[in-house]
Amino acid sequence: MEAKLTYVSGMKFVGEASSGHAIVVDGEREHGGDNVGLRPSELLLIALGGCSAMDVISIMKKKKQHITSFEINVNGNKVDTHPKKFDKIVVEYVFKGKDISEEAVQRAVELSMTKYCSVKATLEGGVPIEYTYKVINE
Amino acid sequence: MEAKLTYVSGMKFVGEASSGHAIVVDGEREHGGDNVGLRPSELLLIALGGCSAMDVISIMKKKKQHITSFEINVNGNKVDTHPKKFDKIVVEYVFKGKDISEEAVQRAVELSMTKYCSVKATLEGGVPIEYTYKVINE
Repeated sequence: MEAKLTYVSGMKFVGEASSGHAIVVDGEREHGGDNVGLRPSELLLIALGGCSAMDVISIMKKKKQHITSFEINVNGNKVDTHPKKFDKIVVEYVFKGKDISEEAVQRAVELSMTKYCSVKATLEGGVPIEYTYKVINE
Repeated sequence: MEAKLTYVSGMKFVGEASSGHAIVVDGEREHGGDNVGLRPSELLLIALGGCSAMDVISIMKKKKQHITSFEINVNGNKVDTHPKKFDKIVVEYVFKGKDISEEAVQRAVELSMTKYCSVKATLEGGVPIEYTYKVINE
C-alpha cells in the first residue's frame, strides 16, 4: 500500500494513495500553515476510527441489528514535549436504533479491536488504546 | 485532539476533526464499499508522510535551501493474516532544486524522524519505520 505527498506551498501538501483518492493536509496558522486541510495527527485518529467503524458496521449488519445512526468519537491525548506523541487514545462507539443488542455491540467492538482492525493493531505497540460504547434504543 | 466519524451508508463514513475539516473514508468494492474515499490504512500512511513533510519543509526553509519540488513516498507493507497490521513502513523524501545541500537534507529528515514528528513517534513502537532520501539538483 502506497501514499504520496506533494508539496504545494506553506505547510500544504496533497496526499494521494493507492485507491486513487486525494486530500489536502495543512498546518495551523501559528505554525506557518493556512488551515485549509486536516492536520496529519487528526488523520491518524480518523484512520483508527474509520478502520474500526468499518469492521463494526459490517459485523452489526451480519448480526441483523437495526441501526439508525452510528458515530465514533476518537479522543487522542498528546504529551506536551516534542515529539508530542499520543500517549492515550480513547475510541467511543455510539449506536442509535431499535432493539439493538448490547451483547452484539460488545462482541462487534471486541472483534474489531482484538482481531480485525489493522490500524489498531499497528498503533497499539506505540500507544494505549481504550474503548467504550453507548447504545441508545429509541 | 478529537475526531468523529459519522456513518453514511455501505462502508462510507464522514470523518471530521478538531480543525473543522472533513473527509470521506470508504472501503473497497470487494468489501462492501463503493470506493468513493480513502481507506483508513491509507490515511495512516498519509498522516505519517504529512507530519514529517511539514517538519522537513519548515527546516529546509530555515536553512535557506532552494527547493523547486518536494515529494514524499510512503510505502507500507501489511502482513497477510488478520488483523493485517503494517509490519514495515518506508518513507522516501525526494527533493528537486538548485544547489540543495545533502547535509541540510540529511539533518532535516533526521530531526523530523528522531525529534519532531509526532505521528512517527506514536507509530514507531508498533511498526519499524525506515527512511531514505533523494536529492536532484537541476
